[in-house]
Amino acid sequence: MDGGTAPNAVAAVSEGRLWDRLMAMARIGGFTTEEGDQGVNRPCLSALDREARRLLIGWAQAAGASVSVDPAANLFLRWEGTDPSLPPVLTGSHMDSQPHGGRFDGIYGVLAGLEAIEALAAAGVRPKRAIEVVAWTNEEGGRFAPGCTGSMSFTGFKPMSAFDDITDVEGIRYADALAEQHAEEADLPRRPLGYRPHAFIEAHIEQGPRLEAEGQEIGVVTGIQGSRWFTVTVEGRTDHAGTAPLSLRRDAVQDAVRAIAALNVLMHDPSDVLRFTVGSITTEPGTSNTVARKVVFTIDFRHPDEGVVRARGDAIPGVVQAALKTCTARVHERFTAMPVDFGPTVPEAVARAAAAQGLKAIRLPSGAFHDAQFLVPVCPTGMIFIPCRAGVSHHPSEYAEPVACANGARVLTQALLDLAGT
Amino acid sequence: MDGGTAPNAVAAVSEGRLWDRLMAMARIGGFTTEEGDQGVNRPCLSALDREARRLLIGWAQAAGASVSVDPAANLFLRWEGTDPSLPPVLTGSHMDSQPHGGRFDGIYGVLAGLEAIEALAAAGVRPKRAIEVVAWTNEEGGRFAPGCTGSMSFTGFKPMSAFDDITDVEGIRYADALAEQHAEEADLPRRPLGYRPHAFIEAHIEQGPRLEAEGQEIGVVTGIQGSRWFTVTVEGRTDHAGTAPLSLRRDAVQDAVRAIAALNVLMHDPSDVLRFTVGSITTEPGTSNTVARKVVFTIDFRHPDEGVVRARGDAIPGVVQAALKTCTARVHERFTAMPVDFGPTVPEAVARAAAAQGLKAIRLPSGAFHDAQFLVPVCPTGMIFIPCRAGVSHHPSEYAEPVACANGARVLTQALLDLAGT
Repeated sequence: MDGGTAPNAVAAVSEGRLWDRLMAMARIGGFTTEEGDQGVNRPCLSALDREARRLLIGWAQAAGASVSVDPAANLFLRWEGTDPSLPPVLTGSHMDSQPHGGRFDGIYGVLAGLEAIEALAAAGVRPKRAIEVVAWTNEEGGRFAPGCTGSMSFTGFKPMSAFDDITDVEGIRYADALAEQHAEEADLPRRPLGYRPHAFIEAHIEQGPRLEAEGQEIGVVTGIQGSRWFTVTVEGRTDHAGTAPLSLRRDAVQDAVRAIAALNVLMHDPSDVLRFTVGSITTEPGTSNTVARKVVFTIDFRHPDEGVVRARGDAIPGVVQAALKTCTARVHERFTAMPVDFGPTVPEAVARAAAAQGLKAIRLPSGAFHDAQFLVPVCPTGMIFIPCRAGVSHHPSEYAEPVACANGARVLTQALLDLAGT
Repeated sequence: MDGGTAPNAVAAVSEGRLWDRLMAMARIGGFTTEEGDQGVNRPCLSALDREARRLLIGWAQAAGASVSVDPAANLFLRWEGTDPSLPPVLTGSHMDSQPHGGRFDGIYGVLAGLEAIEALAAAGVRPKRAIEVVAWTNEEGGRFAPGCTGSMSFTGFKPMSAFDDITDVEGIRYADALAEQHAEEADLPRRPLGYRPHAFIEAHIEQGPRLEAEGQEIGVVTGIQGSRWFTVTVEGRTDHAGTAPLSLRRDAVQDAVRAIAALNVLMHDPSDVLRFTVGSITTEPGTSNTVARKVVFTIDFRHPDEGVVRARGDAIPGVVQAALKTCTARVHERFTAMPVDFGPTVPEAVARAAAAQGLKAIRLPSGAFHDAQFLVPVCPTGMIFIPCRAGVSHHPSEYAEPVACANGARVLTQALLDLAGT
């Protein structure tokens, strides 16, 4: 590596350009809450998603990157290296948001990757390996659950067809939404699905409170906690709310409430490391004056320790069954990801870059779930975290300072060059 | 009353015709469940509702009744009396169903009323007072909650405009749905809203298990228990399900579960007379990997004793507030109806008719909520119950035997003649 090249490229990272682009992207699907927060609702594979992609593509082409799309609708921006035959270094994140999401989650990692290309272009730097910036399809799972379908398809974690029949709340199939995206982007060059990158780095807001609380500027991410997602379907019987004696009912709401209370006991963790969330409850028929015959609720359970992820996750079906008084229940595990360790290669490159730039950095695991975890079996992988206000994300009040965003992009630029070689 | 006239008219009630009409109506909005039950989903003020009304109107006109519609879209079928200047005797029920409802609830009372007119026509009986059969708008509240908006408008319990801004799940306003109904029925004669009938009788399936369990053929309904309906809105904060420590969350699902558990304690009733139902729960944003910022759930609380209705209903807001750990909550009472007593006039007429026909009858209060309760301040009121299988209603397995349906129609015919005079 040429010791003089990286500083030039790092110096060419523009805090203003990166911030302006973040704010421009935030207007696509943007809304203002009653509290005055600027939120984003940009579902994957939607017209808004495509509008954001077109904006990104314009910027990337102006910077000299070439654009292509793979069968999973993952979007790639390639900054060619001096040896195009070598596997590229890959960076990026996602552009979809939660329905009531913020301006930084996902899109920051894509724009930080583009900013690295801009900086290389401005500094006239051409690394040995190409650098590719990717926008993975459907990371959030907010429209089509589970998320990370783009990166799972890319890495072969699951075949792409495994997601075909997932439907959104309007009953639209994932496969149909994907076909619509391809039809609308028919002018973009296509590339085959998947390859083995030289390395993958994802820049992202921390989505937790630690960096801010400890006055740190960069998080060198060492791995990702395990996640298990379940859907619990409680089935009872419809009855008239005014006549059916409570003793004779099979009320799905009441058994669902019992099941959630029992799961709270199972998931009790005085150390407050475990994450347990029931985020969605639906009732059928869902009318005020009818006893519910069916309740469906979701479980999102995460922990960094594989033993805990296995033991408590495996206990969920039994705890639900034991809590029921009158109904039956099915517990479907719809997503499983054991904790992953990023290993040394990429975290070391990130740590070196932060140190070279004099930024305060700590090593930490990711509490959230990222596309990066699916890259681990395929190539050396890592992440860069930047602090975000109060650790809030998936909410319009999500915020990262312009200087924090620029710090992350500078560390990313240097780490990419380090891994791509010159 | 001419002792010979009633038996002729009663004998003219046709079990087959009434049953065939019930089954014909059941095809409008009908569906078959996996278990083979024939359900009905016929929302009020819908195209299906209008189709059912057109079918009814055809039958009524063929029988010699005149048809009119009032501003609340209540539909009237008038069998003229010998003295048109006297207030008519009113009978009827409703034609809308629950979303996953059965073939008898509501529609039975309308068709039993029409059967009475058919029987009078066949027997050549012309009572002194006119008999009017009414199909009240939106009894169920399944599309626009609360229900009974048609009878409440008719009786002046609330001004019609009080319901204008109720919206269905698609955001359609009640006033707009009503305007659409009037536009589609512009060819039907209009009548003004409301009058003071000489008496009102509503025939209905029991929707409870008692008549069947006790081997009774007719229920002489003495009154209706009180109902209080509430909407509870629990508000917390959205957070990332993978990162936000449980100790720092304001999880609306968790506080809603606590509130429901606390309400179960408040509503505990060893005598099993009290009815308490949480039939609908909605979560926002309602995604698996986001802590819910908002949960809305409904409460349907009923009891025949006014003291209990007041005391426990009034305690609901305080119990909800006390159960919250991290969120705030608003408790909105959206409907209140104190227990009503039908008094002697109509129940006596029903009891006399059942006795004259040799049918086994008992007096009982209604567990369900009916349009009849709003007629009580306006005129002598009562109801006729017929047994239904296992007390099930608001469900496709709801069932009443053809002979039970005919028994009810015969008692109705005789009671109507008794009240209308000859």
